[in-house]
Amino acid sequence: MENYREAFLHYLEASIEEKEPENLYRPIAYIMSLGGKRMRPVLVLMGCDLFGQDISTALEAALSVEMFHNFTLIHDDIMDSADLRRGKATVHKKWDVNTGILSGDALMIMAGQRLEHYKGDTFKSLISLYNKTALEVCEGQQLDVDFESLSRVPMDLYLKMISFKTAVLVGASLKMGAIIGKASIKDQHYIYNFGLNLGIAFQLQDDYLDTYGTEDFGKKIGGDIVEGKKTFLYIKALELSSAEDSMKLLDLYSGSYDENRKIEEVKLLFDKYGVAELLLKQIESYTLKALEDVAALSIDPSKKQILKEFALNLMNRKT
Amino acid sequence: MENYREAFLHYLEASIEEKEPENLYRPIAYIMSLGGKRMRPVLVLMGCDLFGQDISTALEAALSVEMFHNFTLIHDDIMDSADLRRGKATVHKKWDVNTGILSGDALMIMAGQRLEHYKGDTFKSLISLYNKTALEVCEGQQLDVDFESLSRVPMDLYLKMISFKTAVLVGASLKMGAIIGKASIKDQHYIYNFGLNLGIAFQLQDDYLDTYGTEDFGKKIGGDIVEGKKTFLYIKALELSSAEDSMKLLDLYSGSYDENRKIEEVKLLFDKYGVAELLLKQIESYTLKALEDVAALSIDPSKKQILKEFALNLMNRKT
Repeated sequence: MENYREAFLHYLEASIEEKEPENLYRPIAYIMSLGGKRMRPVLVLMGCDLFGQDISTALEAALSVEMFHNFTLIHDDIMDSADLRRGKATVHKKWDVNTGILSGDALMIMAGQRLEHYKGDTFKSLISLYNKTALEVCEGQQLDVDFESLSRVPMDLYLKMISFKTAVLVGASLKMGAIIGKASIKDQHYIYNFGLNLGIAFQLQDDYLDTYGTEDFGKKIGGDIVEGKKTFLYIKALELSSAEDSMKLLDLYSGSYDENRKIEEVKLLFDKYGVAELLLKQIESYTLKALEDVAALSIDPSKKQILKEFALNLMNRKT
Repeated sequence: MENYREAFLHYLEASIEEKEPENLYRPIAYIMSLGGKRMRPVLVLMGCDLFGQDISTALEAALSVEMFHNFTLIHDDIMDSADLRRGKATVHKKWDVNTGILSGDALMIMAGQRLEHYKGDTFKSLISLYNKTALEVCEGQQLDVDFESLSRVPMDLYLKMISFKTAVLVGASLKMGAIIGKASIKDQHYIYNFGLNLGIAFQLQDDYLDTYGTEDFGKKIGGDIVEGKKTFLYIKALELSSAEDSMKLLDLYSGSYDENRKIEEVKLLFDKYGVAELLLKQIESYTLKALEDVAALSIDPSKKQILKEFALNLMNRKT
């Protein structure tokens, strides 16, 4: 993994150029240099490597995916009125909203442009996957926005939201690497599903850890409850609870209570309906699905082992 | 022309679908149905027809270009805080800014997706042209935004702005049609330049007519001066005027004066330095360049005549 990341970071550094007009391209260089785990480009390179092709052939696609991801960060930060991103000012805070909109637009186009490096059927497959995924990410973001003004969110729609907003790009990153790595259509399908299922498991685990994780790195436990976020836990609890408890939960989420009391009372309701255990089961189920996808791939057992370990490491985090 | 428009409108109507999430796709259906001249898709079909291919093969590209154009309208209207578009509420007014950002993003992706209809080299050429043009349009919009806070704009940068913000998409529309119509690389080049030069001439004519046109359809003469817009006339006048007259012009543009007095005094300065005549010469020069591009095409003289008439009709408008 660390090799992939280093190869990507090296390539990224050489690729960021400050062009004119400065007010369009400087915000792009800024967000692209803010850091982050670079998970998606790493997965593109990994996807390529799994099928035995030189990872250097996948660097442009890795850059494309990271650029697309950063475009979503710029626009999402505007929509969420977020001031900080990775500890630094968001683009629309450092500049202004119009700059955020326009440089985000440009970054999305530049992301697509990176795929022009590829030829023939590879190019067509990459563009189709890129467009399909990009549109799904927009749909996921829209669902997330929609949920803010709904008190009850259907669970299937919630799973669709986390799937579209983040997991499809994880699957697409691996699949792009696999396409460049000349994987068979079947293997492209399995590696995509591996990423998709693992991405969903990861997002669900975020829900779990926010309420039941260990306090670490200054991250406060219970943030989702305080913010009134409709997570798996909340949706499931509403689904299972008595009319009276439903009213209580809805009231706790919409009213203004002391933070610690709110967290405590909501957790009591979660406990009453055993939603933490149900969530853990769901996480396990998606992780198992991801491992089944690995098993179905026609690659070396040693490479399958790498994917398995990657998945299990990811799912063993405590924060 | 009218045949092209009808063919396009028919195709457009069949293509607008209301998908879920509703809050993402309804604003898109709304802006796409607001009307307008549909100039760009008409030019795609015309570009294809010129080279003897059935225009039905170019309908997806025509739709792509119109969708891209409408994406720019949604985002530009947010940046300009515009309330009305074609006499109806703008997307961010009818919904909100976040909806405008997100549905604009989705519309841009959908525009690119439409090109997946094409295959092989045609597909690759179309995507490259689409991405290049889309990025230039963003750069043009950025320059336009930048100009608002500059008192002096260099003329070459102004011409680049109108070229990138609007003319490149006119050229690209014709060239997309030509690519689908299997035109030679040379002819693709000439038809693009024809559109580019005509687009620049058209935009410069807008500058002229806003100050020197005949009052019609309730459009007030002198709007650019009242708004303090940095047009060719203003930039040229600043370039040529004495230090004293420059100060006067800068003051008139930045101060708050009675509208009619402002228009009158600015026009006196424009007259003193003969900038209207210089603008007319520029318009003529770009129109002539466009006609030279037509002459260089290897198509039937009868088809060249159609392009010539189209250009001359466009440049003979009085409002």
